[in-house]
Amino acid sequence: MLAAGDLPTGAPSLPHAGAAMAEFDLIGLIRERATTRDDVLLGIGDDAALLQPPPGQALVVTADTLNGGVHFPADTRPADIGWKALAVNLSDLASMGAKPAWCTLSLSLPRADAAWVEAFIDGFLELAGRHGIALVGGDTTRGPLSIGVTAMGLVEHGAALRRDRARVGDDIWVTGTPGDAAGALVLGGHMPGPQPAGEASAAARAILEARLARPTPRVEAGRALLGLAHACVDVSDGLLADLGHVCARSGVGAEVWLEALPASAALREVFADAAHVLQAAGGDDYELCFTAPPNLREQVQLALEHVGVDGTRIGRIVAGRGVRALDAQGQPWQPPRAGYEHFG
Amino acid sequence: MLAAGDLPTGAPSLPHAGAAMAEFDLIGLIRERATTRDDVLLGIGDDAALLQPPPGQALVVTADTLNGGVHFPADTRPADIGWKALAVNLSDLASMGAKPAWCTLSLSLPRADAAWVEAFIDGFLELAGRHGIALVGGDTTRGPLSIGVTAMGLVEHGAALRRDRARVGDDIWVTGTPGDAAGALVLGGHMPGPQPAGEASAAARAILEARLARPTPRVEAGRALLGLAHACVDVSDGLLADLGHVCARSGVGAEVWLEALPASAALREVFADAAHVLQAAGGDDYELCFTAPPNLREQVQLALEHVGVDGTRIGRIVAGRGVRALDAQGQPWQPPRAGYEHFG
Repeated sequence: MLAAGDLPTGAPSLPHAGAAMAEFDLIGLIRERATTRDDVLLGIGDDAALLQPPPGQALVVTADTLNGGVHFPADTRPADIGWKALAVNLSDLASMGAKPAWCTLSLSLPRADAAWVEAFIDGFLELAGRHGIALVGGDTTRGPLSIGVTAMGLVEHGAALRRDRARVGDDIWVTGTPGDAAGALVLGGHMPGPQPAGEASAAARAILEARLARPTPRVEAGRALLGLAHACVDVSDGLLADLGHVCARSGVGAEVWLEALPASAALREVFADAAHVLQAAGGDDYELCFTAPPNLREQVQLALEHVGVDGTRIGRIVAGRGVRALDAQGQPWQPPRAGYEHFG
Repeated sequence: MLAAGDLPTGAPSLPHAGAAMAEFDLIGLIRERATTRDDVLLGIGDDAALLQPPPGQALVVTADTLNGGVHFPADTRPADIGWKALAVNLSDLASMGAKPAWCTLSLSLPRADAAWVEAFIDGFLELAGRHGIALVGGDTTRGPLSIGVTAMGLVEHGAALRRDRARVGDDIWVTGTPGDAAGALVLGGHMPGPQPAGEASAAARAILEARLARPTPRVEAGRALLGLAHACVDVSDGLLADLGHVCARSGVGAEVWLEALPASAALREVFADAAHVLQAAGGDDYELCFTAPPNLREQVQLALEHVGVDGTRIGRIVAGRGVRALDAQGQPWQPPRAGYEHFG
């Protein structure tokens, strides 16, 4: 754990010959800047953090790791990496309807680079501050660039949104405009995909790139959907793939209307009609896909409006198994592939 | 988070050209074997785990990462890596006096290797079972071998052992026989250190290697010391270095008697008089170093005996700053170096 001593260690080390005192006290640097909360009894600086969960709440825990060159392009700005490492975890909390509380950070770096860490922490803490989540521990180790975050949140007992609660007849909704991050990946040459319809304008490109670099975890939307949504998942692997998880866990099928998928103006400008491929099968969006009964349509709309998030109905839960995407003619449509894999 | 769907993902992926379905469902493999607990409301298979912390207890959280070639030799057996990745985190919980409850696992692997993961999980779950800790989530990603674990434990409010509570006049104690793991590292050529006194016997070598490969987190000892110990730390970076953290946090100094350091018969056989260097400055032991008032000596001894752990008094807390090691003649002694660094 992030320790208060002179030695920024805590994890075991297979010492390398010639090991010397770190030039920069990376942990001291992180500790100085981390904000805290009243329910943090003991934060960074001991073998472990001491936290005080409130009574009557369930603890919601998620862990996601980003590896350099695998989960983000090698030339990504460190502040954006910091933002995203936390964002992907907050998105998991959001999909459960949880309120973010505490997190740990495990940072593996090839070398002690104070400027890199400063910039990384800028981005990480900027997002942490927006959601009132406290960084309470973790470790720094030597190794290929890798960022592991464990995020903890709180949700009222029995209220959490889950993947396994979709019911036949439910509407399927998505927040925001999925496909933008995938559009940026294709434009950047980081993944195969549809050809742009023409030269992308600088403005459109910048919008898509910002959505990839700094995804907005839908924490407030997740909270607003408590008591309204039946099932919920965050869209990290691609809309159809993630909806597939909901169907598998709920024992239901789904029908998704391609024409209904909400595309940003930037994505439409760059990819025209091909945008729906990125929307249906692209990943890295961190929007919420959820199901809710049709009689709550207006409440869902209002709840999302209240937190300033767009919601769009894109299909319905049906009896059966699997996700069927339908084109404008009502014909079954297959994406070129159904999501991304970490092991090929 | 470890998801129940067909796609063993959850973390965002920068997809690589030619990505295909994984040959093995690594997460399914892990999920099938993970044990659970009554307070796990929702385990592996959703965006996040749902846990039920008991009232009146503080949540204790620690995160430590092991990187291949940095924290363990490249030829370490996968089952031992699994054991150790959890052990180093349980050791942090032990040093706070916490009872292990839940953990997450983030596993980065260069390729999907089911046999490797099976063996890794064998070792991980063997130790998890001994301490009743449930694996509730995490992720698998593609990348250089790296294992991130976040462990959560519980401790009665206000009872946790901390680094910042040492008082002048306290005895300093250590559990077990520190130095063994460092002895194995030196014997294996993984770190510089004193020359063995002669050819190490196979028996002695095996004992030291086992202590490196499968450290025993002192969970029961930490629990037994609640209400007795003032301050506590686990010995991961080296006894003097970790005791230095206690002194810095507590605003006190320490005097350590080299002659009093308890050495295993194996370490004495192999390193003879040079053993004390490994005991004082070696790392990777995962013993507890703690302070307690002299009037509780007998109770401390009995409490440790009750859980089958040896405890030895090795010095005392004094006014001032820093740790002074004294040799048999009462002369100040300096280790060749004061611990290990992850960034040189």
